[in-house]
Amino acid sequence: MILLFSSIIAGVVLIIYLTLTVLDKSPGNEKTEKISRIIQRGARSFLFQEYKVFFPIVFVLAILFGLSSGWTKAVAFIIGATFSVLAGFFGMSIATKSNARTAWGATKGVGEALDIAFSGGAVMGLAVSVLGLLGLSVVYLIFGLEAVSFYSLGASFVALFARVGGGIYTKAADVGADIVGKVEANLPEDDPRNPAVIADNVGDNVGDVAGMGADLYESYVGSIFSAIAIGYALFGAKGVYNTIYIISFGLIASILAIILVKVLSKLNTEPASALRMGTVASSIIFLVFSFAYAIIEKNLNLFWTVLTGNIVGVLIGLITEWYTSGKKVEKLAHSAAMGPANVIISGTALGMESTAVITILIALGTLVSYKLAGLYGIAMAGVGMLSTLAMNLSVDAYGPIADNAGGVAQMAGLDKSVREITDKLDALGNTTAAMGKGFAIGSAALTAIALFANFGSVAHVQQIQLQDPNMFIGALIGAMLTFFFSALTMNAVGDAANDMVEEIRRQIREVPGILSGTVDPDYESCIKIATKGALKRMVLPAVLAILAPIVLMIGLGVQAVVGLLIGSTVTGVALAIFMANSGGAWDNAKKYVEEGHLGGKGSFTHKATVVGDTVGDPYKDTAGPSLNILIKLMAITSIVFYSIVGRWL
Amino acid sequence: MILLFSSIIAGVVLIIYLTLTVLDKSPGNEKTEKISRIIQRGARSFLFQEYKVFFPIVFVLAILFGLSSGWTKAVAFIIGATFSVLAGFFGMSIATKSNARTAWGATKGVGEALDIAFSGGAVMGLAVSVLGLLGLSVVYLIFGLEAVSFYSLGASFVALFARVGGGIYTKAADVGADIVGKVEANLPEDDPRNPAVIADNVGDNVGDVAGMGADLYESYVGSIFSAIAIGYALFGAKGVYNTIYIISFGLIASILAIILVKVLSKLNTEPASALRMGTVASSIIFLVFSFAYAIIEKNLNLFWTVLTGNIVGVLIGLITEWYTSGKKVEKLAHSAAMGPANVIISGTALGMESTAVITILIALGTLVSYKLAGLYGIAMAGVGMLSTLAMNLSVDAYGPIADNAGGVAQMAGLDKSVREITDKLDALGNTTAAMGKGFAIGSAALTAIALFANFGSVAHVQQIQLQDPNMFIGALIGAMLTFFFSALTMNAVGDAANDMVEEIRRQIREVPGILSGTVDPDYESCIKIATKGALKRMVLPAVLAILAPIVLMIGLGVQAVVGLLIGSTVTGVALAIFMANSGGAWDNAKKYVEEGHLGGKGSFTHKATVVGDTVGDPYKDTAGPSLNILIKLMAITSIVFYSIVGRWL
Repeated sequence: MILLFSSIIAGVVLIIYLTLTVLDKSPGNEKTEKISRIIQRGARSFLFQEYKVFFPIVFVLAILFGLSSGWTKAVAFIIGATFSVLAGFFGMSIATKSNARTAWGATKGVGEALDIAFSGGAVMGLAVSVLGLLGLSVVYLIFGLEAVSFYSLGASFVALFARVGGGIYTKAADVGADIVGKVEANLPEDDPRNPAVIADNVGDNVGDVAGMGADLYESYVGSIFSAIAIGYALFGAKGVYNTIYIISFGLIASILAIILVKVLSKLNTEPASALRMGTVASSIIFLVFSFAYAIIEKNLNLFWTVLTGNIVGVLIGLITEWYTSGKKVEKLAHSAAMGPANVIISGTALGMESTAVITILIALGTLVSYKLAGLYGIAMAGVGMLSTLAMNLSVDAYGPIADNAGGVAQMAGLDKSVREITDKLDALGNTTAAMGKGFAIGSAALTAIALFANFGSVAHVQQIQLQDPNMFIGALIGAMLTFFFSALTMNAVGDAANDMVEEIRRQIREVPGILSGTVDPDYESCIKIATKGALKRMVLPAVLAILAPIVLMIGLGVQAVVGLLIGSTVTGVALAIFMANSGGAWDNAKKYVEEGHLGGKGSFTHKATVVGDTVGDPYKDTAGPSLNILIKLMAITSIVFYSIVGRWL
Repeated sequence: MILLFSSIIAGVVLIIYLTLTVLDKSPGNEKTEKISRIIQRGARSFLFQEYKVFFPIVFVLAILFGLSSGWTKAVAFIIGATFSVLAGFFGMSIATKSNARTAWGATKGVGEALDIAFSGGAVMGLAVSVLGLLGLSVVYLIFGLEAVSFYSLGASFVALFARVGGGIYTKAADVGADIVGKVEANLPEDDPRNPAVIADNVGDNVGDVAGMGADLYESYVGSIFSAIAIGYALFGAKGVYNTIYIISFGLIASILAIILVKVLSKLNTEPASALRMGTVASSIIFLVFSFAYAIIEKNLNLFWTVLTGNIVGVLIGLITEWYTSGKKVEKLAHSAAMGPANVIISGTALGMESTAVITILIALGTLVSYKLAGLYGIAMAGVGMLSTLAMNLSVDAYGPIADNAGGVAQMAGLDKSVREITDKLDALGNTTAAMGKGFAIGSAALTAIALFANFGSVAHVQQIQLQDPNMFIGALIGAMLTFFFSALTMNAVGDAANDMVEEIRRQIREVPGILSGTVDPDYESCIKIATKGALKRMVLPAVLAILAPIVLMIGLGVQAVVGLLIGSTVTGVALAIFMANSGGAWDNAKKYVEEGHLGGKGSFTHKATVVGDTVGDPYKDTAGPSLNILIKLMAITSIVFYSIVGRWL
């Protein structure tokens, strides 16, 4: 515990230092500052309204938990929800303060821009990790192990809202801005004459920063929870402490790696190598510490499971990259030469094909870690994948900051060289983001399997009778729910984008000065429409995820819930991989054509790839990543709900 | 058994009568006759070559079965494969003889055209049913119950090849003909100047007639097999005979209904009412017989399970229709007004959404039939859905005949009034086909659940250990396989369509007389390319389906196979529903616009709906329906393979 708290304190110190570094930089001229402020205000306003939607539900649930299971559980649940919100809010606030500063920094050179963007991202990465661990240890030490599941549920609950709400927002704004701006009015990306341009930038922050932060907060907490729950059941306190040591090593390694990247950017190292060296360093340092610990503890299998998780995570990342870049993407772009239908069919097939190797990797990871240390091994492999989360998330969150910086530069009319630097940093972010998605999917699968086993032991179900169809019925419903849930989120994006399109068209029609550039468009009204659209449509999918296990448990019993978790996990994993990789490949096929291949921008082929990219947007940024949360949320809901009503079933 | 054989004989008599009726009609003038002959030759040549690909594999497997399990099993397997081939071949031969005759009949009036087209379809419907039952009873009576699983495996094995091969063929020809013909050369549908026009018509026969026939042969045999296997295990010979009675009632009811439709068409009844009355009559007669039997046997639950299956099948059909017509399709067409990306996103979401109600119906059907009569009830619900298959398949197979008749009329330059009649008959076929897909999906799910339980009892697995991750690993792989399999079949369509596009472009480029109509294009070379393309690409998906359970059983044991069957069934059902309904909705959205709505043919909206329809083609006619076979083939392979190697595991 001393190690854990020291690493948490070190993390807090670094957060403060990085925050001060960022704020110390100049936000640029009047124009960049103003744009940045509008983005920041829009993003904050969305988060506040989002909180207003789900915090009442959090409190109602907390009261129900308090009445049924004792108030410590209710408090644990609220801590889980609140800390997740704090991490997301704080991280996003710094991110939105970093965009203009990064753009301005780029006027001084690529090293300075990288330093600012990465520092901004690292605040998010560290905040998620530090708050996740702090909340977890507080709940564990004060309220005991049983309350940790409620803490984890709080985190998952917020994550689903943040991911779905943020995902709808960002894609509605993006698609809406593209359809009217690029296609109808022929405006370039990030043109200040497009009324939705700032909403689009706000979307990057609430979706790709705050949404992703809450998502990874949930993954991090969920994987640690499943490991300590199983660890405690199998090995008592030792199982808990082993987990805590491993996770502390990950945080320390991340802190060192973040410092390394900062030093490298000061030395003006090539951004790609700086980030790569940081990522590799965090893994190596983490593994060295873990290995040393395993030797001291004479428990080498512990190290091997963590290593297994780490290797599987890296391999999934590489396969993801293979499917969403290079030859695969070139082939996809060529199919676009035959028209939009072909690029959709080929991209769909590509994503579906990619499920094969990735699922086999997950299966191998599960098998090997189980052979090494039983169910605890599976959970620890998941922890191993996410242990250096602080570093990985720093890189992830840096991407949207660089992207936003480019937008600010364009809108403020900064020099072309600035945009070149931010574009370069942004492109780099896309590659590392693909890697991050691999870790997210892999850890979600392992954590879901561990949570599933955990539910089995909580609910005292050791086996399922094959002759009892309730399991199969549950599994059918679980599989269906992942599709239905995706339909809801995709429809939400479509509907919200339609609202946005109408508003943009209205402004352009009613105020002729907008397109000629003499009148500023009404950015705020677009921001409001995206906000309203996302908030209205995020509730049903989230509620569905909570209610499904409850209804099945009451209606058909525990066997059906076991089936539900099997069906939703295996289908959700496949569907999430498919959507992430189809979406990523379409995105990059469009970029490939935009680089001048196959006729370049404006060609028939380019238009076809734009169709692919637009279809891929809700796949990869809304429906796909939400599935990772959905499957874990259903598992944790089952565990918590059984602990409440199990005695009457 | 007397009842069964009497109904089989009655079926054979009716087949002969219908065949003679069709052949007795005039195939029209020289032109229609010639076109019909080319279609027939192309279709037959494809089937022969298809047989050449898979029969060697059938014989190798048969020898392996003979050596390992005795030669009666090998013969049963060959009978299953051969009878399926016979039904498909005979049915398709008559279907290809009916197209020109239907077109010519339409010159005399709609009643005559309906009579010929329906008679042609009914030959297929009856052939599948009669041969399926004949083979099954021969194998059961001579070789015993144990050989029936091998018979069923033979049917499933052929079905997968026929569905995948036929599905690739038909869609490659269709997509290829559309891309060059409609989009590039601006030719109307079925224009004789399009070199792929006859390949397209051949495709309707090998895909929608022969492929679907083999598919339903498999469903029919599979559902009966699972019912008699479970029936025998639970109730001995009584369980077998109950099943045989029920299925005989279904055949008799179908025979009466087919005669009814023929009488109605002679009376010049409106085609829609004639077909509807026939379908309803077959269900009512079947249910009345079953009810009477259940009362005599004092086993009312038997009737209730059959009724449950029937009702669930009808409801799934209605929901399918609801999602692929009317308001849903209008809304989808409206989204097309915003561009191709929107229609793809909305259509994808629509298909995913439709999984909800249909899965819940399947779950309810499973639950109710299980409460009524245990696992036997689930199997009998599946049988109940498919019992009037002969009638339903007659209507299904009638669709492509009417479609082909329209093509022949167009190519031969018959009067416009002829085309109007065939179009009307064709449109009617589309609606009834949606209903048929509902039955196919519903019965596949119920049969797969019954086969799963059957595998459990064959392999002596009573329960799944939750702490053993092998089940979960198997389930992950099962879910993934349905996606991977879809990727393979969709890519196959894409690649084969590309070959076709190149050939059509080559012909148009090299022979300028083709487009001006002075020179006939080389139809045969397009037929050959579609044939080659389909044959080359159908092997891998089929082999994969056979090998997956075998590899898992040897590598990870029976628990992993249990997981495989759960994962593949629940994911496969959801994916199949999604693909069928997205595809159907896109198809009808295009037709809705072509009827003159939202700008009509040639408008921006129309072009967007064409993109949707093209994407939907491989979804609904290749990948989607193949999944129904895949999940059952894996289950039957597991049962058969365990019976061979189980003693060493």
